[in-house]
Amino acid sequence: MEKTELIINSIRGLCADMIQKANSGHPGAPLGCAPITHLLYSQHMTIPSFNPCSFPNRDRFILSNGHASTLLYSMLFLTTEHMKMEDLMQFRQIGSITPGHPEAHLTKGVEVTTGPLGQGFANAVGIAMAQKHLAARFNKDNFDIFNNHIYCLAGDGCLMEGISNEAASLAGHLKLGNLIVLYDSNDITIDGSTSITFTENVNLRFEALGWHVQTVEKGDADYDGINKAILEAKKVTDKPSLISVRTTIGFRSVWQGTSKVHGTPLGAENKNLFEVDKSVIDFYQEVQKKNNLKVEEWYKLFGEYRKTHPELAGELESMFSEENNNKFYTFDKEKHGDIFEYKKLLEILPKFGEKDIGVSVATRSLSGKCLNALNSKIPGLFGGSADLSPSNNTYLLSSGDFTPKNYEAKNIRFGVREHSMMAICNGIASCRIRGLVPYCATFLNFIQYGLPSVRLSAMSKAKVIYVMTHDSIGLGEDGPTHAPIETLGMLRLIPDLLLFRPCDGNEVSGAYAYALSTENTPSVLALTRQGVPHLKGTSVEAVAKGAYVLNPEVEKFSAIIVATGSEVSLAFSAAQILLKKGVSVRVVSMPAEKLFAQQPLDYKRLVFPKGIPILSVEAGATQTWFKYAHFSLGIDTFGVSAPANKIFAHFELVPEKVAEKLEKMVEYFKENPVYDTLKEF
Amino acid sequence: MEKTELIINSIRGLCADMIQKANSGHPGAPLGCAPITHLLYSQHMTIPSFNPCSFPNRDRFILSNGHASTLLYSMLFLTTEHMKMEDLMQFRQIGSITPGHPEAHLTKGVEVTTGPLGQGFANAVGIAMAQKHLAARFNKDNFDIFNNHIYCLAGDGCLMEGISNEAASLAGHLKLGNLIVLYDSNDITIDGSTSITFTENVNLRFEALGWHVQTVEKGDADYDGINKAILEAKKVTDKPSLISVRTTIGFRSVWQGTSKVHGTPLGAENKNLFEVDKSVIDFYQEVQKKNNLKVEEWYKLFGEYRKTHPELAGELESMFSEENNNKFYTFDKEKHGDIFEYKKLLEILPKFGEKDIGVSVATRSLSGKCLNALNSKIPGLFGGSADLSPSNNTYLLSSGDFTPKNYEAKNIRFGVREHSMMAICNGIASCRIRGLVPYCATFLNFIQYGLPSVRLSAMSKAKVIYVMTHDSIGLGEDGPTHAPIETLGMLRLIPDLLLFRPCDGNEVSGAYAYALSTENTPSVLALTRQGVPHLKGTSVEAVAKGAYVLNPEVEKFSAIIVATGSEVSLAFSAAQILLKKGVSVRVVSMPAEKLFAQQPLDYKRLVFPKGIPILSVEAGATQTWFKYAHFSLGIDTFGVSAPANKIFAHFELVPEKVAEKLEKMVEYFKENPVYDTLKEF
Repeated sequence: MEKTELIINSIRGLCADMIQKANSGHPGAPLGCAPITHLLYSQHMTIPSFNPCSFPNRDRFILSNGHASTLLYSMLFLTTEHMKMEDLMQFRQIGSITPGHPEAHLTKGVEVTTGPLGQGFANAVGIAMAQKHLAARFNKDNFDIFNNHIYCLAGDGCLMEGISNEAASLAGHLKLGNLIVLYDSNDITIDGSTSITFTENVNLRFEALGWHVQTVEKGDADYDGINKAILEAKKVTDKPSLISVRTTIGFRSVWQGTSKVHGTPLGAENKNLFEVDKSVIDFYQEVQKKNNLKVEEWYKLFGEYRKTHPELAGELESMFSEENNNKFYTFDKEKHGDIFEYKKLLEILPKFGEKDIGVSVATRSLSGKCLNALNSKIPGLFGGSADLSPSNNTYLLSSGDFTPKNYEAKNIRFGVREHSMMAICNGIASCRIRGLVPYCATFLNFIQYGLPSVRLSAMSKAKVIYVMTHDSIGLGEDGPTHAPIETLGMLRLIPDLLLFRPCDGNEVSGAYAYALSTENTPSVLALTRQGVPHLKGTSVEAVAKGAYVLNPEVEKFSAIIVATGSEVSLAFSAAQILLKKGVSVRVVSMPAEKLFAQQPLDYKRLVFPKGIPILSVEAGATQTWFKYAHFSLGIDTFGVSAPANKIFAHFELVPEKVAEKLEKMVEYFKENPVYDTLKEF
Repeated sequence: MEKTELIINSIRGLCADMIQKANSGHPGAPLGCAPITHLLYSQHMTIPSFNPCSFPNRDRFILSNGHASTLLYSMLFLTTEHMKMEDLMQFRQIGSITPGHPEAHLTKGVEVTTGPLGQGFANAVGIAMAQKHLAARFNKDNFDIFNNHIYCLAGDGCLMEGISNEAASLAGHLKLGNLIVLYDSNDITIDGSTSITFTENVNLRFEALGWHVQTVEKGDADYDGINKAILEAKKVTDKPSLISVRTTIGFRSVWQGTSKVHGTPLGAENKNLFEVDKSVIDFYQEVQKKNNLKVEEWYKLFGEYRKTHPELAGELESMFSEENNNKFYTFDKEKHGDIFEYKKLLEILPKFGEKDIGVSVATRSLSGKCLNALNSKIPGLFGGSADLSPSNNTYLLSSGDFTPKNYEAKNIRFGVREHSMMAICNGIASCRIRGLVPYCATFLNFIQYGLPSVRLSAMSKAKVIYVMTHDSIGLGEDGPTHAPIETLGMLRLIPDLLLFRPCDGNEVSGAYAYALSTENTPSVLALTRQGVPHLKGTSVEAVAKGAYVLNPEVEKFSAIIVATGSEVSLAFSAAQILLKKGVSVRVVSMPAEKLFAQQPLDYKRLVFPKGIPILSVEAGATQTWFKYAHFSLGIDTFGVSAPANKIFAHFELVPEKVAEKLEKMVEYFKENPVYDTLKEF
């Protein structure tokens, strides 16, 4: 007991030292929660001391209250070889692996990127779902390949956020017995006591959501109590568990129990020693050895599994990436090949040719065909829709519903819970089983319900496929509350997020091929509700270049129309009208602006030659288009409710009007220099 | 009972007719919920038959499941003079007042714009808060000026969304006894039975949240049961009420009880009669008379109130707008003046002059001073922060905390519930008491948690003030999970939303003056965490023009730097460096791009004269800037965690680098035409 006390206080000391040295950070939660993480990491979790996130059956620790990052870094210092004392000393400095909030892509051992409250909770639900799925698919008699637990630490803030209630409701419904949430119930938030705003009965709420609930009343000192509760929670296999641990924020510090300690360094009396008693280090060296032995045993087990279940083992191996290799075991990639090789994906996906030109199909429907074609060849598509699967066309036929009785199935019924759906997908992607690719779906407009999670997909390099249908005023009668206007532009502004807006079947296939062939990049597919014609000149492969010429046969032209998605056929029709008037126009499809931006200047100039004016056409906000276009046609007000064709006419997005505007542009540039929008400096 | 049956079936018939004629819409919920709305509108709600939303003490009906819009339109047809049979026949057509989902700014009698699920639920909580607040401030012995009820109809989808749990938790905490939610519990969502994804115990959850909960088991036929439950709920004054009404989706239709009936017209056997039995019309004529009498009584009561409590009556009257006038009673605006007259606001707000130049203050802190200055003169500021009030500087000193014991107070403690906070503000704004102005606050990055509500503020013309601090990488060590990059650009893309990014004290005051002087426009204020210097040349009034020249004394210049917020002083410093090199530069501050876009071309050309190259500088995504600038400096990757000054240096947003880039731009334009970014056609 004394030793436990010493260890826990050493962890607290490290956290306080880091914050003091950085003169910035949040000591409150780490000081209060150090007993919890010490017990988890020393007695319950199995993670290897090297490349911890590469071990497929590792236990997970998700820090939903990401501002307690020093606690996670301290635990990684004690349990892995990747976090050194020098790293702790670099807390919150440029180039360090110890940023203000945990960033998964930056730091080995950090499972998910957290900080925005509630996200980690939903990520944990996603990981628990993924592990249940993998266990159901790959576990066999005597081969518990996947039997790990997902532990999540969450604070009052996390549990006030709506996203966590959504995720908790789904977790209860799905009976995720491998999920154990430790709730740091400390009665304090930034504004003061939780009594000023958060007086609900959290435990009862979680019971209503189908959870197993326990309380540890004296979480600061009752280590046995915490431990027993975790053991008890592990025994409950048909429900997720909530353990409310009553703690004192900033325990043992000068401001313990107050809101001030949440986010203020503890002050000068703390001498920045960064010293840890040797007995503490030794203790955790033993933990490391124990963990590494367990990991070694797992790889031995997997070796046996390969002999007994060669096909399943092969399938699983094919889902791993080289990244996951480690010194115990090398998955045989040579043997299985790369399931996401771009050319192989192209072979799987539908292509459209001469005979299809003019046939009208909604791109959402084409997307459904792609998903199902892929699902027949690729092992790990795993996802679904927020209660719109008939509209989003995302159901994987013959793959069944993911339910407590059928975790093997691949179709997730997320319910009307967009935000947690997207965070759950981040959780699935964070499993770093490369072949397990989460996808999710709703109307494009409602991607805003989960935008904080979309942002985190991009930041944490989580390969999530967002299938977003009903992507413009083309959705028609549902009207402005459902019609995205600003959304395409918004998504283009998010760093490292790919937005595809394909114009027909070839481009839908091209978008899927590219999105799946990336290693670490999330993609949004914006798809139409309404039918759009297959077009002459479209190409599956050209999508990878971001933008390309649809009518290269037109060699001399006085203007260019660049368009995306449903407006590409509109651009074509306008070009035909203009041709009759003797005005030759190049038509450019730009299904993926960010990919075009990455092309070499030479290619860009092939598409947009110097001296030719460019008109952009997209049924959405115009302001992001001036990066490429000299003039932009779009919609800068909210939509209206009416049949789709009438709305397009209302906003003058019809061939005659586009042709008219283009002529005006050509007129303007007769008297003004045609400047270079591709200029760089 | 037979007559009730006839009326309810007539309502169902109208809904089905509308959907059939439009060949588009959602019959399921209206058919199932017609008994509920009939009982509410005929027996419980008092709304005048004319200008229903102008009566301050009206009962509210909020249709959170906005896809059941035909039901709301049918009720307005029966209870008001503004909805005619012709309007019902124009359901989902351009220019009609009966769009696919209810739009408050379009249709008299529609309280809030709903459709995106869960929003209406949170709006209702906001309205209940506003009414409690008004009652506490203005009710006196024998004068129950405000004693209305807020009824909200919500479906399974609404209750799955996280936003509704946030709002329900706060409503329970605040003991909002005036709020009654009727939960259309029909076991069906678009994907099928709720059993596939939604099996939590909703009633128990709401009990855990502090609600009074009842169930009506046979909601299709047990009209008495529904009625009794509503009466019972009204008796409970210290808790919000949930009434779970078990209904059959699409009751009495061919697909009743199935997911198909949610969103599919019922088919040709429905003959589009739009006929209603005269007895039904007569019945509701009587309801209208009864309601109008009650309204008349209220205005009589208010007349007495004016005599007994002239000051309070005057204060309340000063908060009303002309819009609210009606034939019973004219509020005396002449007498009270316009509390939001722009010039008066300027007098209230702080101004900064010569002596302040160079003094460094964070704009979030200046914002706090503005809010408090305004609060001392304007009656109805009402809002707060999502648990960040010390960081957001939004606390109204000496105005107390809004609690069940002190509803009179003006500081709302929203908790860590950003999404519902923003929807609650939409609800408060929807009360159409012009002088009651909701504001809310969090870090700018976390506006994404509530973006669907921000969008609805703009669409429904709800004057909400969003105080968003920590508006860039300038927040420092908290790092990329908290640092907005894409956010400023995103907000600029939302139609009818004003984004202000003031650079110093004068501009903060100018932003508040403009935001408050608008009638129906929401505003976002993006404010710094870090100190920024008061600058020479800034102006409170010029903010209203969106952009203006800071150094007009420089008459000849070879380039322009346009910047916003914290980057304006950076632009100034760069200009000083350049001046030493003999390069003269104009510095333009653009605190409100959308207001600049609305200026006449003449003014725009004064700011950006033809033939002068323009460089934009903003610590965020660059892509929206090409509308104005020839080159753009900003950040198109995620941020990093470090002290703020080091991050600015990391991204080369320092005077030397900006000066360097500007020189390169000038160089470029020596060999290329300086084109006109303000061109129109």
